[in-house]
Amino acid sequence: MSKRNVRALKGRPGPLRKGANGGEPRVRAADMLSHALGLFAEVGFANATVKAIAKAAGVNPALIYYYYANKEALFVEALRYAINMAIEGQDGMGIIERTADPAAVIRFWFEKNRQLASPLSQMLKLMIEYRTAGRRIPAVEKLISQFYDAEVLLLARAIRRGIKIGQFRRVDVDRTAIFVSTHLDGLVVSATVRPAVNMARSISHLERVLFDYLGAAAEAVPSAPVGRLQHTVPATRS
Amino acid sequence: MSKRNVRALKGRPGPLRKGANGGEPRVRAADMLSHALGLFAEVGFANATVKAIAKAAGVNPALIYYYYANKEALFVEALRYAINMAIEGQDGMGIIERTADPAAVIRFWFEKNRQLASPLSQMLKLMIEYRTAGRRIPAVEKLISQFYDAEVLLLARAIRRGIKIGQFRRVDVDRTAIFVSTHLDGLVVSATVRPAVNMARSISHLERVLFDYLGAAAEAVPSAPVGRLQHTVPATRS
Repeated sequence: MSKRNVRALKGRPGPLRKGANGGEPRVRAADMLSHALGLFAEVGFANATVKAIAKAAGVNPALIYYYYANKEALFVEALRYAINMAIEGQDGMGIIERTADPAAVIRFWFEKNRQLASPLSQMLKLMIEYRTAGRRIPAVEKLISQFYDAEVLLLARAIRRGIKIGQFRRVDVDRTAIFVSTHLDGLVVSATVRPAVNMARSISHLERVLFDYLGAAAEAVPSAPVGRLQHTVPATRS
Repeated sequence: MSKRNVRALKGRPGPLRKGANGGEPRVRAADMLSHALGLFAEVGFANATVKAIAKAAGVNPALIYYYYANKEALFVEALRYAINMAIEGQDGMGIIERTADPAAVIRFWFEKNRQLASPLSQMLKLMIEYRTAGRRIPAVEKLISQFYDAEVLLLARAIRRGIKIGQFRRVDVDRTAIFVSTHLDGLVVSATVRPAVNMARSISHLERVLFDYLGAAAEAVPSAPVGRLQHTVPATRS
């Protein structure tokens, strides 16, 4: 991305300002970004045209150019949208962390990842394409760090608390959290490179491995709180 | 990739035929593909021009067009080259499998992955870009399957043999092999998306986790055969 484009992106109030033709701009912008995300992830940056994205979103290409200086600015915003969506998902864990036992928190986190498998896969593809293209946009760098840090911190907190109350055996907490986060990335890549891989099933396997490692077999963990909490998560699997 | 391009690629004798200006064409073609691989992985398909690849390889762009119909054909050959290189590395394990104990085979496999971290990372990036662009070229599909199947088979064989001779505890062999292979992909992605991640150190951690899981602590495994075998691997880390 050229310096000019980055500046153009920064200088704009962004997709959240009131649209020219009224309506709720926040919703419409999110809808456009969601379609941009899907198409960028599906066919890659080079092959996803603004025209095709506009068509998928059911809007005029001029509206996209009204919001975004160019395709690169749209790509960066789509990536930012995907990461923010994932981080918001993590933030929503706050209330569960305060009310459920550590094992339930971890099980809920796995369930969320199973349900968000498709958007998370799109996010990772865009992150890799962003890196591969050698882009370095401070705001995006910060979002990527925030996403991984939040994920690892959530897992580490639950594992540490589980050890403290005697639910899990003593393990290297930070190493374990990073290991699980890394493995999830590996599962997403597997499912991308080898379409025959069933991501939801792989995530469930990782969950069993983790509980086994923590000395808490899946059966031994009370499942009632998770069963209840699952209903609060919208089914977004595509 | 258009059908015409695929046909153009298939119809050609490929990069291994004798070059117009003599010399050893196999070596020169490998050198060109190695540079193409590096540039495609570094800046992505769209940003890597044939002119830049020719410059990096120190040849005339016309020579590249003499071998490859277009940039897409070159991309596919670079991906094929990377996968073949990785599979050849796995094939070279045959003699070690016959002469060393299972733990030494697994340690040797990890050492190889540490040493080939950079080209393996390039290969994975190209695989993801190939998938993302929606390409479906039977020869490449086959190579991707061969690569993963060979990797998982090698690990599964060593684990099974280790269990048989009482070196490892009983585990689900295939699940464990797939788990390790998937995690390695996750490590490559982590190092791509978050450059602060030290891939060699992460691979060593995965190695310790696996031996711990197999009930064979790193210390308990005889290290002499591995120490000897390591010298047969050329140091290709960049």
